[in-house]
Amino acid sequence: MQLYNPVELLLKKRDGNPLDSSEIAFFVNGYLCGEIAEYQMSALLMACYFQGLEAAEIAALTKTYIQSGKTIDFEPNLPVADKHSTGGVGDKISLMLAPIAASLGLYVPMISGRGLGHTGGTLDKLESIPGFITSFSMEEFKAMVLKYGFALVGQSAQLVPADKRIYALRDVTATVESPGLITASIMSKKIAEGARHLVIDLKIGSGAFMPNLRRAKELAEHLIYTGNSFGQHVSVVFSNMNSPLGHAVGNALEMIEAIEYLKGNYLPDTYELTTALTAQMLISAGIATDFTAAKELIDKSISSGEALEKFRQIIIAQGGNPGVIEDYSIFAKSEAVLPIIAEKGGYVHQIDSRSIGYALVRIKAGRMQVSDTIDYGAGALLYPKIGDKIQVGQKIGEVHAATLRQADEVANLILKSYHIAEFPKDKEPLIFEISTS
Amino acid sequence: MQLYNPVELLLKKRDGNPLDSSEIAFFVNGYLCGEIAEYQMSALLMACYFQGLEAAEIAALTKTYIQSGKTIDFEPNLPVADKHSTGGVGDKISLMLAPIAASLGLYVPMISGRGLGHTGGTLDKLESIPGFITSFSMEEFKAMVLKYGFALVGQSAQLVPADKRIYALRDVTATVESPGLITASIMSKKIAEGARHLVIDLKIGSGAFMPNLRRAKELAEHLIYTGNSFGQHVSVVFSNMNSPLGHAVGNALEMIEAIEYLKGNYLPDTYELTTALTAQMLISAGIATDFTAAKELIDKSISSGEALEKFRQIIIAQGGNPGVIEDYSIFAKSEAVLPIIAEKGGYVHQIDSRSIGYALVRIKAGRMQVSDTIDYGAGALLYPKIGDKIQVGQKIGEVHAATLRQADEVANLILKSYHIAEFPKDKEPLIFEISTS
Repeated sequence: MQLYNPVELLLKKRDGNPLDSSEIAFFVNGYLCGEIAEYQMSALLMACYFQGLEAAEIAALTKTYIQSGKTIDFEPNLPVADKHSTGGVGDKISLMLAPIAASLGLYVPMISGRGLGHTGGTLDKLESIPGFITSFSMEEFKAMVLKYGFALVGQSAQLVPADKRIYALRDVTATVESPGLITASIMSKKIAEGARHLVIDLKIGSGAFMPNLRRAKELAEHLIYTGNSFGQHVSVVFSNMNSPLGHAVGNALEMIEAIEYLKGNYLPDTYELTTALTAQMLISAGIATDFTAAKELIDKSISSGEALEKFRQIIIAQGGNPGVIEDYSIFAKSEAVLPIIAEKGGYVHQIDSRSIGYALVRIKAGRMQVSDTIDYGAGALLYPKIGDKIQVGQKIGEVHAATLRQADEVANLILKSYHIAEFPKDKEPLIFEISTS
Repeated sequence: MQLYNPVELLLKKRDGNPLDSSEIAFFVNGYLCGEIAEYQMSALLMACYFQGLEAAEIAALTKTYIQSGKTIDFEPNLPVADKHSTGGVGDKISLMLAPIAASLGLYVPMISGRGLGHTGGTLDKLESIPGFITSFSMEEFKAMVLKYGFALVGQSAQLVPADKRIYALRDVTATVESPGLITASIMSKKIAEGARHLVIDLKIGSGAFMPNLRRAKELAEHLIYTGNSFGQHVSVVFSNMNSPLGHAVGNALEMIEAIEYLKGNYLPDTYELTTALTAQMLISAGIATDFTAAKELIDKSISSGEALEKFRQIIIAQGGNPGVIEDYSIFAKSEAVLPIIAEKGGYVHQIDSRSIGYALVRIKAGRMQVSDTIDYGAGALLYPKIGDKIQVGQKIGEVHAATLRQADEVANLILKSYHIAEFPKDKEPLIFEISTS
């Protein structure tokens, strides 16, 4: 490996000159082995935040991340596909998408994360199923994907360890929100896990990290280019995260909503988004020729019960109690269930979804810090979407919490997150557009 | 003290919002006591590099720096004055300016630094005098200033320790070149040492850190505003650093040039700059009404021998051998002295003074790292300035080194630093302009 002076590389990046692949590898690997100080890595991350990263730099960073650990290699012709969401409120799409995709012949090696801040995490939702395990070796994970067509696990310490360490440093140095660094972080994991067809649910709005479509498109371009440069086909679905997805927000409540979905009882927004995302994976892998064909396959996988059966298989394979599918009382339940009653009539003009997410962290439906514990039963059901008309005194949802006092506090915070006005408001599109490579 | 979340302060600064004084104090003091991590401080420094610091932030940072240690307080009516140079090649001005100023009634508590990279340091030049000590307690330093009118020492660990630690971090994280951070670093020391009248020699050109007048003026504005906000009168002399100052570059050689100066044998450029800087101090303190009056006082202090006598006193007070004033053979001498012979005739169009500085580091006239040792005898004499006409075969200087081989190598590097062309070149002004508050 070539040797560089870390300060010279810092000066180079700081002054707006791109680093080449061997310079990036030197800095990241030097950091991982302790030869480059943490304060130098954080200075580089801040310089990257301000100067941005060029496509070649992002690809080089992604490659260095991948090479820091082990990878999963599937047979060349296997249709291995995955979805990644940039995070939202009430986003339980993975729980339906993965078994549907698996039932239609795709192999989905889904590595998910935990909830943090206002956003939930798929791993927490899965762990609301008693006994469900999300920690497996990479070999066990691969074997489950090959046997069942999918598996739903957490990131192994052997997969992309560089990203794990650098992400932790970004989190405490205000360097998370860099499109280039975000791209390398997402794509390194999705390439290392062996996915060849990737769909990204890039969320925009009050409950998302991306404030507007312009910024989202910049990130999408990086994601598509980086995936392509590793031979991966990438689609990006730009979706609206101004209203929480579905009705349920909270781990067991979302799990129940997902199971209902797989039984055919779905809500319009979760149906539209799940179908759009799964269709992109099917089209990319050549299993469906177009959206209409894909939608037909997806609908059949639910009406035939095959998707639900896949889900039952993976619950059993991952140590969970499959009884939850028929008996929701097996899930943790909150002592206090309080209706949320509208204090004002009119049309919903805006929903501060981020505030709803943070309100629910107070009753442990989510967490502020990685070390916080989760109350799986806690959460809320929220019915109105932007544009809906509501009446004074109407029940617009309910809060599930450990005590009535806590439920009341959160119900009030949630009420404040709904901006109601007398004049009508148009409903908003759920999917803004789709980019594909 | 108010408590903040360091990551929120990082986000605030990163996004271009100024930090208030209590936020700055929290971050710097938290860093000093180990509660804020080094990687967070370096991320903040890089964010400051990109977003800049507003006048109020610089004043707050300067105050926090000062309060991190002890200060020297002189009696209210004492004319305490000092000079600071931003660093150059052959810059021995302090060695003449301080004794001249002291002989004219000013009190000069001069805290200097060591050479690093292409620039020399006053402490190294002083230590070329056998026995000369530059490390004193703050009490001893103050006592010497009161007794002799000046003293020439290094920064005590008790004076502005925050700057010492943060400067070391900036040095290894590519965050030195920030006007706001530079200002707080310079001004905190000059305020903590008790100087009420400050003149800054802000050097611009090939041997300086500032590439052009526009950037220098931005820094000057910060320096003046910050000094003023602590009740200090600040003048900035914008000077030309395209040609090395005087003839000598190297520690003992510069010391000899300085002693010759105090004996009345001065070179035109060192005379012009020393007089301009000293005059600003005398005018600011009310000892002279204008430049003409100041120049008269300065000239008299040299012709009467009073400035030289002051210098003799301080050599004795600081433990040095005053015999050097009459007998230069007491200084360390280099074994090899090699003339530099012009290989091309014409006019000097450009001198790469920075390269000359770096060339001389090779023979230990300076240092690349703080831990490098100095050869006090090593250095060079360099006669031509920009605009001068030289002939082929003319001796344009000489190199003093430990071996002839080394001297020859450096002589060749120095020759390459002179850009000679046949057509004439105008001489350059030494002082561009003077700003005063």
